[in-house]
Amino acid sequence: MGGHLLDREAVLAANTAFYQAHEEGDAITMQSLWMHDDDRVVCTHPGWPTLRGWPAVWASWHQLLTLANRPQFIITSEQVDIGDTLAWVSCDENLLGSGDGATVAAINIFAREGGSWRMIAHHGSTVIR
Amino acid sequence: MGGHLLDREAVLAANTAFYQAHEEGDAITMQSLWMHDDDRVVCTHPGWPTLRGWPAVWASWHQLLTLANRPQFIITSEQVDIGDTLAWVSCDENLLGSGDGATVAAINIFAREGGSWRMIAHHGSTVIR
Repeated sequence: MGGHLLDREAVLAANTAFYQAHEEGDAITMQSLWMHDDDRVVCTHPGWPTLRGWPAVWASWHQLLTLANRPQFIITSEQVDIGDTLAWVSCDENLLGSGDGATVAAINIFAREGGSWRMIAHHGSTVIR
Repeated sequence: MGGHLLDREAVLAANTAFYQAHEEGDAITMQSLWMHDDDRVVCTHPGWPTLRGWPAVWASWHQLLTLANRPQFIITSEQVDIGDTLAWVSCDENLLGSGDGATVAAINIFAREGGSWRMIAHHGSTVIR
């Protein structure tokens, strides 16, 4: 039970670090948060097709993290579900930035790798109604 | 390892049954595929905000399953990842129906409940570029 609570905190911390790295354009941290795996990793940015495998996923982040106008995130409604080897977080990304802002509905999935929880899936979609 | 393969097949079967129930407007099967849980279940239909908890999720399906023009699905790029108590599937929903059709990127998460894998999360987003 203590382990479960620690896992919960570790997964939430990884989720928070993911958005912070995005906000700050921190490529090194972003790389370290993901599992580098060709068969398990997927990423679906809002409106994009699903990118599969670490090279394709990383190429997209490399592009997004170097944009001049990265959004600021206020993350709400975080809901965490922990398994033995997989965990997932559902949350709302409230984007501040140029323009009117937006809300992106997101699911992030993490897998245990050694002592760490690494992101293996990110799926975000803009709320339009 | 045999169990792992059986889990993989069970999760894929649940994923297939989910789309078949949607196509056929089969409310009874759709209900049976989901975990009925207030704290774990989420569902994000394309462009919708995330619905949280079984009552809200079921209300949306009750509405969608009674639409006259439900889409037909051709599911491609299914990718399955199995943990001890959680599993997830990434796939592309190729929608046939009235209009030009569309592709929806999807992630479906399942949790083991007794001997079955029940859906606890569905997230779909329309590919627009």
